[in-house]
Amino acid sequence: MELAIVGGTGDIGEGLALRFAKDTSHSITLGSRDTQRAQDAASDYRTKLRTGGFESNIDGTSNNSAVSTSDLSILCVPPYHIRETVDSLRDALAEQIVVTPAVGMNGDEDGLHYRPPPTGSITELVADCVSTDTPVIGAFHNLAAARLAQLDAALDVDTLVVGDDQAAKAVVMELASELTGVRALDAGPLANSAEVESVTPLLINIARYNSDLHNVGVKFH
Amino acid sequence: MELAIVGGTGDIGEGLALRFAKDTSHSITLGSRDTQRAQDAASDYRTKLRTGGFESNIDGTSNNSAVSTSDLSILCVPPYHIRETVDSLRDALAEQIVVTPAVGMNGDEDGLHYRPPPTGSITELVADCVSTDTPVIGAFHNLAAARLAQLDAALDVDTLVVGDDQAAKAVVMELASELTGVRALDAGPLANSAEVESVTPLLINIARYNSDLHNVGVKFH
Repeated sequence: MELAIVGGTGDIGEGLALRFAKDTSHSITLGSRDTQRAQDAASDYRTKLRTGGFESNIDGTSNNSAVSTSDLSILCVPPYHIRETVDSLRDALAEQIVVTPAVGMNGDEDGLHYRPPPTGSITELVADCVSTDTPVIGAFHNLAAARLAQLDAALDVDTLVVGDDQAAKAVVMELASELTGVRALDAGPLANSAEVESVTPLLINIARYNSDLHNVGVKFH
Repeated sequence: MELAIVGGTGDIGEGLALRFAKDTSHSITLGSRDTQRAQDAASDYRTKLRTGGFESNIDGTSNNSAVSTSDLSILCVPPYHIRETVDSLRDALAEQIVVTPAVGMNGDEDGLHYRPPPTGSITELVADCVSTDTPVIGAFHNLAAARLAQLDAALDVDTLVVGDDQAAKAVVMELASELTGVRALDAGPLANSAEVESVTPLLINIARYNSDLHNVGVKFH
């Protein structure tokens, strides 16, 4: 499968790119608003993987080119850039599965707090922005980027997958399961995405208040 | 320690009463608006524990009597009864640690959704209702009542504890840790309680959409 990682130069983009390159044989294309930055990041990630002893298949280009040549696009952009990013890529995204891991949060002295947009969640906001027939799946919200990027770190974590298109959800659950140490769980339709997204600020709060739980993940059992 | 379980005849009250009776030596008093119901429930729980081979120390009385003779009260009442319950017990609760596991949710065809009150969370609502100096701690929100009540079911789950009073929080974390298979994690001050509470509808959605995860719990690592 051809995977585009839109915003592939950011933290979660790097983490997912490295893990998909390490654990799967899918082709990975990083997208960025700046083609040169995407190419530099791809080179950087290839070096990291080679240093870790892994062959990799990562390239970098513009967001639009990355999406245009892919079957599935993961939108690794900050929540406040989601709407303009999806609007600018709407036609290119129309023919594929769109995956969103973004979460709206803000912080104060107590911790991070979940702050969804008026649509109910970022996942639902993405679904509102794409073409009507484009399936949108929420996944990878609750994986710590720094832990993904540390290639020798064990994961043994779950990722929760939400979506209204059952076939697309099955593809994303299968894809997520290809990452070593990741189990994909079905959390239901997009209407259930706020409860999935709000785990992300919780994890960051748990990491802050418990010294042995840096880059903590979650497992349901 | 003397523990009162206000609303001790309900599902989560039963689950916590049975586990505290099984795993600790604390005295447990069930409270109910109806004294006879509390006494009947205490008798029922003692029978369940005896059948499982456990000695127990559970009595039942009115909510007010239960609270008045205790050091710590766990408010196992539905979220829509929290305010009137706390108002009616305000003086009795004043001298102790108040623990709240309640979560506001509603359901539709897709699943359960987190619906906090205008105060931000039920935990913060309880803190608004008690006397100024009464420490309120949120805990036990994310434990499946039916799994607690099944005495031979392994737990191996976390409970997240929130509160602004550090000493009271330490007492509750220690208390929760006395339950076999439960680890207490600090999730920070009361301001972080919404992200803790919203895990409960998520767990119920995960149980619904994944056939092997009935009465699922959560573990952070």
